[in-house]
Amino acid sequence: MIIYCMVLIARLCRKKYEMQERKVGLNMSDILVEIEGSGKHCHVKRETLDILYGKGFELEVKKWLSQPGQFAAPQKVTLVGPRGSTELTIIGPCRKVDQIELSLTDARALGFDPPIRESGDVAGSPGCKLIGPQGEVETSDGVIIAKRHIHLTPEDAEKFGFVDKQIVKVRVEGERALVFDEVVARVSPEYATYIHIDYDEANAAALSGDPPMGLVLS
Amino acid sequence: MIIYCMVLIARLCRKKYEMQERKVGLNMSDILVEIEGSGKHCHVKRETLDILYGKGFELEVKKWLSQPGQFAAPQKVTLVGPRGSTELTIIGPCRKVDQIELSLTDARALGFDPPIRESGDVAGSPGCKLIGPQGEVETSDGVIIAKRHIHLTPEDAEKFGFVDKQIVKVRVEGERALVFDEVVARVSPEYATYIHIDYDEANAAALSGDPPMGLVLS
Repeated sequence: MIIYCMVLIARLCRKKYEMQERKVGLNMSDILVEIEGSGKHCHVKRETLDILYGKGFELEVKKWLSQPGQFAAPQKVTLVGPRGSTELTIIGPCRKVDQIELSLTDARALGFDPPIRESGDVAGSPGCKLIGPQGEVETSDGVIIAKRHIHLTPEDAEKFGFVDKQIVKVRVEGERALVFDEVVARVSPEYATYIHIDYDEANAAALSGDPPMGLVLS
Repeated sequence: MIIYCMVLIARLCRKKYEMQERKVGLNMSDILVEIEGSGKHCHVKRETLDILYGKGFELEVKKWLSQPGQFAAPQKVTLVGPRGSTELTIIGPCRKVDQIELSLTDARALGFDPPIRESGDVAGSPGCKLIGPQGEVETSDGVIIAKRHIHLTPEDAEKFGFVDKQIVKVRVEGERALVFDEVVARVSPEYATYIHIDYDEANAAALSGDPPMGLVLS
Protein backbone atom coordinates (compact mmCIF):
# COMPACT_ATOMS: atom_id res chain seq x y z
CA MET A 1 0.00 0.00 0.00
CA ILE A 2 2.77 2.41 0.98
CA ILE A 3 4.77 1.59 -2.13
CA TYR A 4 1.64 1.99 -4.24
CA CYS A 5 1.07 5.47 -2.77
CA MET A 6 4.67 6.47 -3.42
CA VAL A 7 4.50 5.31 -7.03
CA LEU A 8 1.21 7.14 -7.49
CA ILE A 9 2.63 10.38 -6.10
CA ALA A 10 5.69 10.07 -8.29
CA ARG A 11 3.50 9.52 -11.36
CA LEU A 12 1.20 12.43 -10.58
CA CYS A 13 4.18 14.64 -10.01
CA ARG A 14 5.75 13.60 -13.29
CA LYS A 15 2.47 14.13 -15.13
CA LYS A 16 2.16 17.62 -13.75
CA TYR A 17 5.58 18.66 -14.99
CA GLU A 18 5.10 17.01 -18.35
CA MET A 19 1.88 18.95 -18.75
CA GLN A 20 3.66 22.17 -17.80
CA GLU A 21 6.39 21.46 -20.31
CA ARG A 22 4.00 20.74 -23.15
CA LYS A 23 1.73 23.67 -22.28
CA VAL A 24 -1.28 21.73 -23.46
CA GLY A 25 -3.98 24.37 -23.63
CA LEU A 26 -3.91 27.54 -21.62
CA ASN A 27 -4.84 28.18 -18.02
CA MET A 28 -6.44 31.24 -16.51
CA SER A 29 -3.08 32.18 -15.04
CA ASP A 30 -1.21 32.09 -18.37
CA ILE A 31 0.30 35.42 -19.30
CA LEU A 32 -0.57 36.38 -22.85
CA VAL A 33 0.89 39.62 -24.15
CA GLU A 34 0.62 41.22 -27.60
CA ILE A 35 3.74 40.94 -29.75
CA GLU A 36 4.91 43.69 -32.09
CA GLY A 37 7.57 43.16 -34.74
CA SER A 38 9.77 46.24 -35.20
CA GLY A 39 11.25 47.05 -38.59
CA LYS A 40 14.52 48.91 -39.05
CA HIS A 41 14.29 52.45 -37.67
CA CYS A 42 16.29 55.13 -35.95
CA HIS A 43 16.07 57.45 -32.99
CA VAL A 44 17.97 60.74 -33.19
CA LYS A 45 19.13 63.30 -30.69
CA ARG A 46 18.17 66.97 -31.03
CA GLU A 47 21.58 68.04 -32.38
CA THR A 48 21.47 65.33 -35.05
CA LEU A 49 17.98 66.33 -36.18
CA ASP A 50 19.15 69.96 -36.38
CA ILE A 51 21.79 68.93 -38.91
CA LEU A 52 19.67 66.40 -40.87
CA TYR A 53 16.49 68.49 -41.13
CA GLY A 54 17.57 72.00 -40.12
CA LYS A 55 17.89 73.91 -36.86
CA GLY A 56 14.82 73.57 -34.65
CA PHE A 57 12.97 71.23 -37.02
CA GLU A 58 10.13 69.38 -35.31
CA LEU A 59 9.31 65.81 -36.30
CA GLU A 60 5.71 65.30 -37.41
CA VAL A 61 3.50 62.42 -36.33
CA LYS A 62 2.62 59.91 -39.01
CA LYS A 63 1.50 57.19 -36.61
CA TRP A 64 1.35 56.88 -32.84
CA LEU A 65 3.01 53.72 -31.57
CA SER A 66 1.98 51.45 -28.72
CA GLN A 67 4.47 52.95 -26.27
CA PRO A 68 2.97 56.17 -24.87
CA GLY A 69 4.31 59.32 -26.55
CA GLN A 70 6.31 57.42 -29.18
CA PHE A 71 5.51 57.94 -32.85
CA ALA A 72 6.69 57.11 -36.36
CA ALA A 73 7.49 60.33 -38.21
CA PRO A 74 6.92 60.80 -41.94
CA GLN A 75 10.52 62.07 -42.03
CA LYS A 76 13.10 59.58 -43.27
CA VAL A 77 16.85 59.41 -43.11
CA THR A 78 19.31 57.58 -45.34
CA LEU A 79 21.63 55.23 -43.47
CA VAL A 80 24.93 54.55 -45.23
CA GLY A 81 26.78 51.38 -44.29
CA PRO A 82 30.07 49.86 -45.47
CA ARG A 83 28.29 47.82 -48.18
CA GLY A 84 25.11 49.70 -48.97
CA SER A 85 22.49 52.19 -47.87
CA THR A 86 18.84 52.13 -46.89
CA GLU A 87 16.04 54.46 -45.85
CA LEU A 88 15.01 54.49 -42.22
CA THR A 89 11.90 55.79 -40.52
CA ILE A 90 12.65 58.19 -37.66
CA ILE A 91 10.87 57.38 -34.39
CA GLY A 92 10.11 60.48 -32.34
CA PRO A 93 10.42 62.30 -30.09
CA CYS A 94 14.17 63.01 -30.00
CA ARG A 95 16.23 60.96 -27.55
CA LYS A 96 19.50 61.46 -25.70
CA VAL A 97 21.50 59.34 -28.16
CA ASP A 98 21.39 58.48 -31.85
CA GLN A 99 20.31 54.84 -32.13
CA ILE A 100 19.89 52.86 -35.32
CA GLU A 101 18.05 49.56 -34.87
CA LEU A 102 18.54 46.96 -37.59
CA SER A 103 17.75 43.27 -37.92
CA LEU A 104 20.77 41.01 -38.46
CA THR A 105 19.51 40.53 -42.03
CA ASP A 106 19.57 44.32 -42.58
CA ALA A 107 22.94 44.66 -40.83
CA ARG A 108 24.65 42.03 -42.96
CA ALA A 109 23.29 43.47 -46.20
CA LEU A 110 24.61 46.91 -45.21
CA GLY A 111 27.97 45.61 -43.96
CA PHE A 112 27.52 46.27 -40.25
CA ASP A 113 28.39 43.90 -37.42
CA PRO A 114 26.41 45.40 -34.54
CA PRO A 115 26.02 44.04 -31.02
CA ILE A 116 22.71 42.85 -29.55
CA ARG A 117 21.80 45.54 -27.05
CA GLU A 118 19.03 47.00 -24.97
CA SER A 119 17.76 50.38 -26.11
CA GLY A 120 20.01 53.25 -25.00
CA ASP A 121 23.06 51.01 -24.53
CA VAL A 122 25.05 52.03 -27.61
CA ALA A 123 28.59 52.38 -26.20
CA GLY A 124 31.10 50.63 -28.45
CA SER A 125 28.56 49.89 -31.18
CA PRO A 126 29.43 50.82 -34.78
CA GLY A 127 28.96 54.35 -36.02
CA CYS A 128 27.39 55.24 -39.36
CA LYS A 129 26.58 58.04 -41.75
CA LEU A 130 23.04 59.46 -41.67
CA ILE A 131 21.89 61.70 -44.51
CA GLY A 132 18.90 64.05 -44.32
CA PRO A 133 17.63 66.74 -46.68
CA GLN A 134 19.60 69.49 -44.92
CA GLY A 135 22.83 67.74 -44.04
CA GLU A 136 24.63 64.63 -42.94
CA VAL A 137 26.05 63.29 -39.69
CA GLU A 138 28.77 60.74 -38.92
CA THR A 139 27.78 59.13 -35.63
CA SER A 140 30.51 57.67 -33.42
CA ASP A 141 28.27 54.75 -32.44
CA GLY A 142 24.57 53.83 -32.34
CA VAL A 143 24.05 50.88 -34.71
CA ILE A 144 22.57 47.99 -32.73
CA ILE A 145 20.45 44.87 -32.99
CA ALA A 146 17.68 45.32 -30.44
CA LYS A 147 17.64 42.73 -27.67
CA ARG A 148 14.14 41.27 -27.60
CA HIS A 149 12.18 42.64 -24.71
CA ILE A 150 8.86 42.99 -22.99
CA HIS A 151 7.69 46.41 -21.89
CA LEU A 152 5.65 46.19 -18.71
CA THR A 153 3.68 48.69 -16.70
CA PRO A 154 4.54 48.40 -12.98
CA GLU A 155 0.98 47.10 -12.43
CA ASP A 156 1.36 44.29 -14.97
CA ALA A 157 4.86 43.46 -13.73
CA GLU A 158 3.51 43.06 -10.21
CA LYS A 159 0.50 41.07 -11.43
CA PHE A 160 2.71 38.71 -13.45
CA GLY A 161 5.42 38.52 -10.80
CA PHE A 162 8.22 39.97 -12.95
CA VAL A 163 10.84 42.53 -12.05
CA ASP A 164 12.77 45.03 -14.17
CA LYS A 165 15.70 43.42 -16.04
CA GLN A 166 14.42 39.88 -15.39
CA ILE A 167 15.05 37.48 -18.28
CA VAL A 168 11.88 35.69 -19.31
CA LYS A 169 10.80 33.41 -22.16
CA VAL A 170 8.04 33.93 -24.70
CA ARG A 171 6.29 31.10 -26.51
CA VAL A 172 4.73 31.82 -29.90
CA GLU A 173 2.27 29.30 -31.34
CA GLY A 174 1.68 28.50 -35.01
CA GLU A 175 3.33 26.84 -38.00
CA ARG A 176 6.71 28.03 -36.79
CA ALA A 177 6.04 27.74 -33.07
CA LEU A 178 9.06 28.53 -30.92
CA VAL A 179 10.13 29.74 -27.51
CA PHE A 180 12.23 32.87 -27.38
CA ASP A 181 14.62 32.76 -24.45
CA GLU A 182 16.64 35.81 -23.34
CA VAL A 183 13.69 38.22 -23.43
CA VAL A 184 14.46 41.09 -21.07
CA ALA A 185 11.62 42.51 -18.97
CA ARG A 186 11.62 46.30 -18.76
CA VAL A 187 9.32 47.87 -16.22
CA SER A 188 8.35 51.54 -16.19
CA PRO A 189 5.26 53.67 -15.58
CA GLU A 190 6.05 55.22 -18.98
CA TYR A 191 5.47 51.91 -20.79
CA ALA A 192 2.50 50.00 -22.12
CA THR A 193 2.68 46.19 -21.87
CA TYR A 194 3.93 44.78 -25.19
CA ILE A 195 6.52 42.27 -26.39
CA HIS A 196 8.94 43.69 -28.97
CA ILE A 197 10.91 41.55 -31.42
CA ASP A 198 12.55 42.43 -34.73
CA TYR A 199 11.59 41.25 -38.22
CA ASP A 200 14.07 38.34 -38.26
CA GLU A 201 12.49 37.10 -35.05
CA ALA A 202 8.93 37.78 -36.26
CA ASN A 203 9.64 35.89 -39.51
CA ALA A 204 11.37 33.01 -37.73
CA ALA A 205 8.14 32.59 -35.76
CA ALA A 206 5.93 33.33 -38.82
CA LEU A 207 4.15 35.72 -36.51
CA SER A 208 0.42 35.71 -37.16
CA GLY A 209 -2.86 36.49 -35.41
CA ASP A 210 -4.67 39.77 -35.06
CA PRO A 211 -2.99 40.78 -32.88
CA PRO A 212 -0.21 38.20 -32.50
CA MET A 213 0.19 37.08 -28.90
CA GLY A 214 3.02 35.55 -26.91
CA LEU A 215 2.80 33.35 -23.84
CA VAL A 216 5.25 34.74 -21.29
CA LEU A 217 7.06 32.13 -19.20
CA SER A 218 9.35 32.90 -16.29
CA MET B 1 8.36 8.23 8.20
CA ILE B 2 6.03 7.20 5.39
CA ILE B 3 4.90 10.77 4.85
CA TYR B 4 8.51 11.92 4.89
CA CYS B 5 9.39 9.37 2.19
CA MET B 6 6.47 10.46 0.06
CA VAL B 7 7.39 14.13 0.34
CA LEU B 8 11.01 13.30 -0.48
CA ILE B 9 10.02 11.34 -3.58
CA ALA B 10 7.72 14.13 -4.72
CA ARG B 11 10.53 16.67 -4.26
CA LEU B 12 13.09 14.57 -6.09
CA CYS B 13 10.65 14.00 -8.92
CA ARG B 14 9.88 17.71 -9.17
CA LYS B 15 13.59 18.55 -9.13
CA LYS B 16 14.27 16.13 -11.97
CA TYR B 17 11.69 17.73 -14.20
CA GLU B 18 12.75 21.24 -13.32
CA MET B 19 16.30 20.31 -14.25
CA GLN B 20 15.10 18.84 -17.54
CA GLU B 21 13.14 21.98 -18.29
CA ARG B 22 16.04 24.29 -17.57
CA LYS B 23 18.58 22.07 -19.32
CA VAL B 24 21.26 23.07 -16.86
CA GLY B 25 24.42 21.79 -18.49
CA LEU B 26 24.46 18.88 -20.90
CA ASN B 27 24.32 15.17 -20.24
CA MET B 28 26.01 12.37 -22.13
CA SER B 29 22.67 11.48 -23.68
CA ASP B 30 21.99 14.98 -25.05
CA ILE B 31 21.66 15.03 -28.81
CA LEU B 32 23.78 17.77 -30.32
CA VAL B 33 23.58 18.20 -34.08
CA GLU B 34 25.27 20.75 -36.35
CA ILE B 35 23.01 23.54 -37.62
CA GLU B 36 23.29 25.01 -41.11
CA GLY B 37 21.54 28.22 -42.15
CA SER B 38 20.37 28.11 -45.76
CA GLY B 39 20.25 31.27 -47.84
CA LYS B 40 17.79 31.81 -50.67
CA HIS B 41 18.37 29.32 -53.49
CA CYS B 42 16.60 27.28 -56.13
CA HIS B 43 16.41 23.73 -57.42
CA VAL B 44 15.47 23.27 -61.06
CA LYS B 45 14.21 20.37 -63.12
CA ARG B 46 16.04 19.23 -66.26
CA GLU B 47 13.57 20.91 -68.65
CA THR B 48 13.88 24.22 -66.84
CA LEU B 49 17.69 24.12 -66.94
CA ASP B 50 17.50 23.36 -70.69
CA ILE B 51 15.61 26.62 -71.22
CA LEU B 52 17.60 28.76 -68.76
CA TYR B 53 21.09 27.57 -69.72
CA GLY B 54 20.62 25.72 -73.02
CA LYS B 55 19.71 22.16 -74.03
CA GLY B 56 21.78 19.56 -72.18
CA PHE B 57 23.69 22.10 -70.06
CA GLU B 58 25.36 20.52 -67.05
CA LEU B 59 25.60 22.45 -63.79
CA GLU B 60 29.15 22.81 -62.48
CA VAL B 61 30.19 22.29 -58.87
CA LYS B 62 31.26 25.40 -57.00
CA LYS B 63 30.94 23.86 -53.53
CA TRP B 64 29.83 20.46 -52.24
CA LEU B 65 27.17 20.75 -49.55
CA SER B 66 26.70 18.67 -46.40
CA GLN B 67 23.99 16.50 -47.93
CA PRO B 68 25.68 13.79 -50.04
CA GLY B 69 25.70 14.57 -53.78
CA GLN B 70 24.23 18.07 -53.35
CA PHE B 71 26.23 21.08 -54.52
CA ALA B 72 26.05 24.82 -55.04
CA ALA B 73 26.62 25.62 -58.70
CA PRO B 74 28.42 28.73 -59.92
CA GLN B 75 25.42 29.21 -62.21
CA LYS B 76 22.86 31.77 -61.08
CA VAL B 77 19.31 32.53 -62.07
CA THR B 78 17.31 35.74 -61.73
CA LEU B 79 14.05 35.34 -59.84
CA VAL B 80 11.41 37.93 -60.70
CA GLY B 81 8.68 38.55 -58.14
CA PRO B 82 5.68 40.88 -58.06
CA ARG B 83 7.67 43.63 -56.34
CA GLY B 84 11.30 43.00 -57.28
CA SER B 85 13.93 40.59 -58.45
CA THR B 86 16.98 38.88 -57.00
CA GLU B 87 19.78 36.51 -57.99
CA LEU B 88 19.60 32.94 -56.75
CA THR B 89 22.23 30.24 -56.53
CA ILE B 90 21.20 27.00 -58.23
CA ILE B 91 21.63 23.89 -56.09
CA GLY B 92 22.42 20.79 -58.15
CA PRO B 93 21.83 18.20 -59.35
CA CYS B 94 18.50 18.72 -61.13
CA ARG B 95 15.37 17.63 -59.27
CA LYS B 96 11.88 16.53 -60.26
CA VAL B 97 10.33 19.94 -59.59
CA ASP B 98 11.39 23.57 -59.72
CA GLN B 99 11.64 24.80 -56.14
CA ILE B 100 12.57 28.30 -55.01
CA GLU B 101 13.37 28.57 -51.30
CA LEU B 102 13.18 32.03 -49.77
CA SER B 103 13.17 33.40 -46.26
CA LEU B 104 10.04 35.33 -45.27
CA THR B 105 12.21 38.48 -45.35
CA ASP B 106 13.18 37.71 -48.98
CA ALA B 107 9.62 36.76 -49.90
CA ARG B 108 8.10 39.98 -48.58
CA ALA B 109 10.70 42.15 -50.29
CA LEU B 110 9.95 40.40 -53.60
CA GLY B 111 6.17 40.45 -53.14
CA PHE B 112 5.57 36.73 -52.66
CA ASP B 113 3.34 35.14 -50.02
CA PRO B 114 4.62 31.55 -50.04
CA PRO B 115 3.55 28.71 -47.76
CA ILE B 116 5.88 27.01 -45.27
CA ARG B 117 6.56 23.61 -46.79
CA GLU B 118 8.80 20.58 -46.75
CA SER B 119 11.10 20.21 -49.72
CA GLY B 120 9.33 18.74 -52.75
CA ASP B 121 5.86 19.75 -51.54
CA VAL B 122 5.22 22.69 -53.88
CA ALA B 123 1.58 22.08 -54.95
CA GLY B 124 -0.43 25.28 -54.72
CA SER B 125 2.60 27.46 -53.94
CA PRO B 126 3.14 30.64 -55.99
CA GLY B 127 4.78 30.46 -59.41
CA CYS B 128 7.45 32.87 -60.58
CA LYS B 129 9.59 33.93 -63.50
CA LEU B 130 13.17 32.59 -63.67
CA ILE B 131 15.63 34.17 -66.09
CA GLY B 132 18.85 32.53 -67.26
CA PRO B 133 21.38 33.51 -69.91
CA GLN B 134 19.64 31.41 -72.59
CA GLY B 135 15.99 31.89 -71.79
CA GLU B 136 13.27 32.37 -69.22
CA VAL B 137 10.64 30.18 -67.60
CA GLU B 138 7.31 30.94 -65.92
CA THR B 139 6.83 28.27 -63.29
CA SER B 140 3.28 27.35 -62.25
CA ASP B 141 4.37 26.91 -58.62
CA GLY B 142 7.53 26.31 -56.60
CA VAL B 143 8.09 29.33 -54.34
CA ILE B 144 8.17 28.16 -50.72
CA ILE B 145 9.49 28.98 -47.28
CA ALA B 146 11.37 25.86 -46.18
CA LYS B 147 9.95 24.19 -43.08
CA ARG B 148 12.80 23.82 -40.64
CA HIS B 149 14.03 20.26 -40.52
CA ILE B 150 16.63 17.82 -39.34
CA HIS B 151 18.16 15.41 -41.85
CA LEU B 152 18.99 12.11 -40.18
CA THR B 153 20.75 8.98 -41.32
CA PRO B 154 18.72 5.88 -40.38
CA GLU B 155 21.53 5.00 -37.94
CA ASP B 156 21.34 8.35 -36.14
CA ALA B 157 17.53 8.29 -36.18
CA GLU B 158 17.60 4.91 -34.45
CA LYS B 159 20.29 5.99 -32.01
CA PHE B 160 18.36 9.14 -31.08
CA GLY B 161 14.98 7.38 -31.07
CA PHE B 162 13.41 9.50 -33.81
CA VAL B 163 11.28 8.42 -36.76
CA ASP B 164 10.73 9.97 -40.19
CA LYS B 165 8.25 12.89 -40.11
CA GLN B 166 8.45 13.19 -36.32
CA ILE B 167 8.19 16.75 -35.07
CA VAL B 168 11.04 17.58 -32.70
CA LYS B 169 12.41 20.70 -31.00
CA VAL B 170 15.86 22.23 -31.27
CA ARG B 171 17.40 24.43 -28.60
CA VAL B 172 20.05 26.94 -29.64
CA GLU B 173 22.20 28.55 -26.94
CA GLY B 174 23.72 32.02 -26.97
CA GLU B 175 22.77 35.68 -26.73
CA ARG B 176 19.53 34.95 -28.57
CA ALA B 177 18.90 31.50 -27.13
CA LEU B 178 15.63 29.97 -28.25
CA VAL B 179 13.86 26.68 -28.80
CA PHE B 180 12.59 25.99 -32.30
CA ASP B 181 9.44 23.89 -32.19
CA GLU B 182 7.93 22.31 -35.33
CA VAL B 183 11.23 20.93 -36.62
CA VAL B 184 10.44 17.98 -38.89
CA ALA B 185 12.73 14.93 -38.76
CA ARG B 186 13.53 13.46 -42.18
CA VAL B 187 15.22 10.10 -42.23
CA SER B 188 16.94 8.63 -45.28
CA PRO B 189 20.10 6.66 -46.10
CA GLU B 190 20.78 9.43 -48.63
CA TYR B 191 21.11 12.05 -45.88
CA ALA B 192 23.84 13.24 -43.54
CA THR B 193 22.71 14.32 -40.06
CA TYR B 194 22.28 18.12 -40.02
CA ILE B 195 19.70 20.65 -38.84
CA HIS B 196 18.59 23.07 -41.57
CA ILE B 197 17.05 26.47 -40.85
CA ASP B 198 16.77 29.59 -43.02
CA TYR B 199 18.48 32.94 -42.54
CA ASP B 200 15.54 34.53 -40.67
CA GLU B 201 15.72 31.66 -38.21
CA ALA B 202 19.52 31.72 -38.04
CA ASN B 203 19.46 35.47 -37.36
CA ALA B 204 16.65 35.22 -34.81
CA ALA B 205 18.93 32.82 -32.92
CA ALA B 206 22.08 34.87 -33.67
CA LEU B 207 23.56 31.55 -34.72
CA SER B 208 27.21 31.29 -33.72
CA GLY B 209 29.84 28.70 -32.95
CA ASP B 210 32.14 26.86 -35.27
CA PRO B 211 30.16 24.91 -36.17
CA PRO B 212 26.88 26.06 -34.61
CA MET B 213 25.14 23.23 -32.75
CA GLY B 214 21.55 22.58 -31.74
CA LEU B 215 20.29 20.44 -28.87
CA VAL B 216 17.55 18.20 -30.26
CA LEU B 217 14.63 17.58 -27.90
CA SER B 218 11.81 15.17 -28.59
